[in-house]
Amino acid sequence: MDAETQLAELTRGVVDLHVREELLARLKEGRPLRIKAGFDPTRPDLHLGHTVVLRKMRQFQDLGHVITFLIGDTTAMVGDPTGRNKLRPQLSREDVVAAAETYVAQASKVLDKSKMEVRYNSEWLDAMKPMDLVRLMAKSTVSRMLERKDFAKRFAEQQPIYQHEFLYPLMQGYDSVALESDVELGGTDQLFNLLVGRDLMPQYGKKPQIVMTVPLLEGIDAKIEDGRIVGAKMSKSSDNYVGIDEPPDEQFRKIMLIDDQVIWRYFELLSSRSAAEIAALREDVAAGKRHPKDAKKLFADEIVAQYHGADAAGPARKRWDAKFEADAIPDDVPTVAIPCEGAGVWLPKALALAKLVNSSSQGKQLVEQGGVEVDQQRVSDPKHELAAGKTYLVRVGSKNRRFARLAVGA
Amino acid sequence: MDAETQLAELTRGVVDLHVREELLARLKEGRPLRIKAGFDPTRPDLHLGHTVVLRKMRQFQDLGHVITFLIGDTTAMVGDPTGRNKLRPQLSREDVVAAAETYVAQASKVLDKSKMEVRYNSEWLDAMKPMDLVRLMAKSTVSRMLERKDFAKRFAEQQPIYQHEFLYPLMQGYDSVALESDVELGGTDQLFNLLVGRDLMPQYGKKPQIVMTVPLLEGIDAKIEDGRIVGAKMSKSSDNYVGIDEPPDEQFRKIMLIDDQVIWRYFELLSSRSAAEIAALREDVAAGKRHPKDAKKLFADEIVAQYHGADAAGPARKRWDAKFEADAIPDDVPTVAIPCEGAGVWLPKALALAKLVNSSSQGKQLVEQGGVEVDQQRVSDPKHELAAGKTYLVRVGSKNRRFARLAVGA
Repeated sequence: MDAETQLAELTRGVVDLHVREELLARLKEGRPLRIKAGFDPTRPDLHLGHTVVLRKMRQFQDLGHVITFLIGDTTAMVGDPTGRNKLRPQLSREDVVAAAETYVAQASKVLDKSKMEVRYNSEWLDAMKPMDLVRLMAKSTVSRMLERKDFAKRFAEQQPIYQHEFLYPLMQGYDSVALESDVELGGTDQLFNLLVGRDLMPQYGKKPQIVMTVPLLEGIDAKIEDGRIVGAKMSKSSDNYVGIDEPPDEQFRKIMLIDDQVIWRYFELLSSRSAAEIAALREDVAAGKRHPKDAKKLFADEIVAQYHGADAAGPARKRWDAKFEADAIPDDVPTVAIPCEGAGVWLPKALALAKLVNSSSQGKQLVEQGGVEVDQQRVSDPKHELAAGKTYLVRVGSKNRRFARLAVGA
Repeated sequence: MDAETQLAELTRGVVDLHVREELLARLKEGRPLRIKAGFDPTRPDLHLGHTVVLRKMRQFQDLGHVITFLIGDTTAMVGDPTGRNKLRPQLSREDVVAAAETYVAQASKVLDKSKMEVRYNSEWLDAMKPMDLVRLMAKSTVSRMLERKDFAKRFAEQQPIYQHEFLYPLMQGYDSVALESDVELGGTDQLFNLLVGRDLMPQYGKKPQIVMTVPLLEGIDAKIEDGRIVGAKMSKSSDNYVGIDEPPDEQFRKIMLIDDQVIWRYFELLSSRSAAEIAALREDVAAGKRHPKDAKKLFADEIVAQYHGADAAGPARKRWDAKFEADAIPDDVPTVAIPCEGAGVWLPKALALAKLVNSSSQGKQLVEQGGVEVDQQRVSDPKHELAAGKTYLVRVGSKNRRFARLAVGA
């Protein structure tokens, strides 16, 4: 594939690119480029959010370039700046390798393991002498670091910035020096750090790397407000993720919960369909020729097929249909605001407040009898709580079903 | 000597003391305290300016405490913050030891070598691993460093502060952790750095050191303006120093050039006379009972005796008298401003401008004939220049002597 065509392919969905002309020039050299992407060894459960950058890495692989899957075992101890002076505990070599292996095993569902090298930055960072680190620090200024948004904000607000926090961007920038990377990939939140690497390289006599960022995927609870996607980025801690190791039915169920508009963001960032195919699909939905739910099912099929094999998608869809289509959710489900003072509200009480039942005790009885579903899953624990700040689709009763969306603490 | 008496003795002439109560408490413990003073191995020519802190160290020794003469061989490479990102070159072990030996040999004219240990901070700093340095940095904040005056100024003026510059205070502070020092001594310009050491120690489980600073001595060209001493601190680069290794006659001559008022600063900081003796001497001069020149001679005697032995002072004074008293400088020497556009002005031209001679060429002839003295030293090089920004005492002719003070470029 010629350089211009490669460039068009590689820059699809990219947010920042420093700089396009350099990337084109290197693609024209015709050699396999060295692509760096860094990962923290302390969070090994991959979800769809991580796959945005993994898919971009895979694109490079498919075009014949070489991926370095860099495990930041030393930088992980320093920690990407957090405003705390507690360092993370020293990781044992066994823990690091175990975490990295889990990570790589999961990532291999997207990447081609045969065109990938795994490196650890302890290889060069731990070998540094104090004066090497001093020399590294001499290549950047305090003002340059304070340009980083989170530092600038803390500095303006007189929150402490501990001195070692400035080291993280420099150390991961030095990784690019050690690897002599041609391109570094990362999420948009890593732009500053990646550019530090680009700045450092010529100071060590290396060609500056090209920097490319991809968007951060919002969680499955994101909404559209005023035409913009609003919501936390996908993460385990926000419990709004679809894990790539989760079972097919769970992936299918979670994807079907995504907002009808937000699903197009997922298509854009994660689907293998061409831009033209996605646009056509979207037009059909907009024109009412196709139900939004069908578009989501197509996307869910694709994800299940990718992470569990093509044979897994059909059965997962069938089970979902059998469970949910029989008693389809009406189009006119009302949204009810449920006041909430603490971290959550007791489910039976919420049902009563939404007037789905007459009292909390009737609600409790119904939960115990298995007559209540939250987000299309039966809840039978009478102590169950709904968390503040979230909206739940709730179904009550089995013969005479009643639905409501409960917006807790809204 | 009891603790209170020691305290009174030790705090004489001290500028900053953090904190007095702690020092008293440690003196009361009755054990020899560990006194740290740091020196840079790259400037081995000691002058009277250095002896201010050395004399304070000696005081501690005389009271039974132990001095650590710390050679900052590793910190010297980092360099006390300079606003440049060039690090000083790596020093060879031989160069460091040679410089330290010269340093210690000179310092031994003030210190008691038998109650002193010499250490190098490479001992612990070079043994640090990168994570040790990260841990050190995690114990201080960016804001704390920006409190240092020179950093604050550069930050406000948007001059670069290279990141490694923040390391210097931390590293020399870590020296106190390694040495477990009870007291650290330094010039007033080192106050910030010494306090960083005091801050760090409890974070490493050590008792915080007491910090004591002594004044920086002004050079022999200092003047009194509006009751305050004005002038650069004594240094080789400002050429306003009295070296402790200089010959007796040279020391005597330089001391006699000190301003009649400024000499009292020298008495205060460098004389072994008691405060009462100095006060009495000063009163005599003020009352006209003693000529200012005599007071300076007493001081010059003391310095020559200290650095060349008691036997050297008398002969040096006699030679000075023979040379200068015979043709004493009149009391009413006029000061003449000599305009100067560049770095200096040609001596014969200056003589003509001051109307000491009729023309530059007459001046040149007089210089060649040995008829011109500058600061009481004959100048016979006809190309000699007077530097801008300085004032010189000039004598022209031998029989009909004429004097003037030439203020060049003033």
